[in-house]
Amino acid sequence: MRATVMYGAGDVRVENVPDARIIEPTDALVVVTRAAICGSDLWPYKKMVPSETGNRMGHEFIGVVEAVGGNVRKIKVGDLVAAPFAWSDGTCIFCQQGLQTSCLHGGFWGGTELDGGQGEAVRVPQADGTLVPLPVRADNELMPSLLTLTDVMSTGHHAALAAKVGPGKSVAVVGGGAVGLCGVIAARRLGAEQIIFLDRHPDRIALAKEFGATDIVSERGNEAVEHVRGLTKGFGVHSVLECVGYEESTLTALSIVRPGGAVGRVGVPQDEKMPAALPTFFNNITISGGPAPARAYIEELMPDVLEGKIEPGRVFDRVIYLNDMPDGYRAMNERETIKVLIKF
Amino acid sequence: MRATVMYGAGDVRVENVPDARIIEPTDALVVVTRAAICGSDLWPYKKMVPSETGNRMGHEFIGVVEAVGGNVRKIKVGDLVAAPFAWSDGTCIFCQQGLQTSCLHGGFWGGTELDGGQGEAVRVPQADGTLVPLPVRADNELMPSLLTLTDVMSTGHHAALAAKVGPGKSVAVVGGGAVGLCGVIAARRLGAEQIIFLDRHPDRIALAKEFGATDIVSERGNEAVEHVRGLTKGFGVHSVLECVGYEESTLTALSIVRPGGAVGRVGVPQDEKMPAALPTFFNNITISGGPAPARAYIEELMPDVLEGKIEPGRVFDRVIYLNDMPDGYRAMNERETIKVLIKF
Repeated sequence: MRATVMYGAGDVRVENVPDARIIEPTDALVVVTRAAICGSDLWPYKKMVPSETGNRMGHEFIGVVEAVGGNVRKIKVGDLVAAPFAWSDGTCIFCQQGLQTSCLHGGFWGGTELDGGQGEAVRVPQADGTLVPLPVRADNELMPSLLTLTDVMSTGHHAALAAKVGPGKSVAVVGGGAVGLCGVIAARRLGAEQIIFLDRHPDRIALAKEFGATDIVSERGNEAVEHVRGLTKGFGVHSVLECVGYEESTLTALSIVRPGGAVGRVGVPQDEKMPAALPTFFNNITISGGPAPARAYIEELMPDVLEGKIEPGRVFDRVIYLNDMPDGYRAMNERETIKVLIKF
Repeated sequence: MRATVMYGAGDVRVENVPDARIIEPTDALVVVTRAAICGSDLWPYKKMVPSETGNRMGHEFIGVVEAVGGNVRKIKVGDLVAAPFAWSDGTCIFCQQGLQTSCLHGGFWGGTELDGGQGEAVRVPQADGTLVPLPVRADNELMPSLLTLTDVMSTGHHAALAAKVGPGKSVAVVGGGAVGLCGVIAARRLGAEQIIFLDRHPDRIALAKEFGATDIVSERGNEAVEHVRGLTKGFGVHSVLECVGYEESTLTALSIVRPGGAVGRVGVPQDEKMPAALPTFFNNITISGGPAPARAYIEELMPDVLEGKIEPGRVFDRVIYLNDMPDGYRAMNERETIKVLIKF
């Protein structure tokens, strides 16, 4: 079969790889119908040390179940399923509390051992715990929005929950990638009164406004902090969604939250330490977040997608086929596009 | 009047200073009956750059109201009152939400502008917002426990709330000073099932056990982390109370909390950055805490003190008079004593 393999920074190839197949009795074999390139795929695209074996890529996908192992009970051949960006057994102590990204028997797609979503088929471990059947046909027009539930929409929702967004709250979203845009949707869905979107790209700003952003801050650093304070009577916001992961964006996030407020961080940290230990202490700031338990949120958010209440699929502004993956990565990395959808 | 002034690291003096007096119409004048030396007073005792003017010291005190300004309505002359370690107006946006340490018109005792609690009398700004009348006489035997409500018991409680302690939870307390010991009391009071106390001093360990600690970890660094994991099926604890503030203790705290757990930090951070940005992210750890809104907690915790349900006053293992302050600081700094109470 054909799949996407990254061999180093900027080096993405589509290659023949061994066919995905059932190995464990808890596996399912899924033929991919839709996949995506994630902002987090751009970290290795920028930084990856050259590798001879390469890493299989992709962790957002929807597909059709072609086969299941002997111990799979819930998932059936023929099901159209969404796969969250982490696989999980659904039964361990952490899965039971809804934190499937810390599953004791789970893990993440791709790398050197597992298939990735940016390929024709995927062996899905712990199929019953991992996969969520979709109540629509594979060609449904809602497919882009359903696909966002596997990562970016769930991640935006996670950031909003971690930042304690709620009715009447003021919220700032730091970072206007697909996750930040979904964070705007999540904040509005949870009842935020004011949603300040921090980004400087006109296409993202336009979409953020349609999703519910009430104010735009295009400055960076101290100027951004001053602007946000000016929009919030000098106090800062109740909730910040940190959707980037750089030290500068984290510092901005920690500087625009008001005393007693919360920062939900979902941008993968690119530094060993977190800034502003002392100011965040004196202001009683809560810092929370991490990888979203998308497995839990897919089911929570899907009704709103099916009813058309939220349209996170609008973050996809380019559709490609598998052979175009190298250019898809390039386009996302150069911010020529917000998010790329792959059709099979 | 006489008061404690610090002029530099290790340089504490008791001196004649201008008499405390009413300046603003919202002030009260309080004659101090009990005060304390705090673990946080030891930071300047270790580090303070020599100063010619010196800093007035002390932020934990109980006393009798001798006079009130013309706009003071609730506090009356003759009241026995407890003063939290921060003063606050009681009416601003942050006071209304119970975060009086971020009061828009509040502040902290001592320094170069204000009286400190380690002196014969104190001008109390925002008296109606700040002071809490005590329903006992000044010589009541519960005075040590009531005095802890002005800081260390409220701070331990704050750490426990920030760490989301609750019934059935496993808890670790990092740091066995008075705050850590009060953290044990707070964790037990909030229903924790397992309370692991991290300290190596026999006197503190003995008291922690009496307060409800179920396990003791005397190692440090990686060995401490391993020991805590061994006590918690390898997962780590649900809640950690960080009661020190050093980078090493913070790293220990962040390393012994289980995925999805929370660290409540009340030790004043001694470093600009916080360690372990990436592991805490991947484990979805919540980091919260800061200066405790003792003003709110005094009223919340006082009934338990008055009914004898909690005895935080047992952290005081030495009683001195004002003239002995230099030796009191020395003894606490050398860990000869856990916490010093000053009688007037």
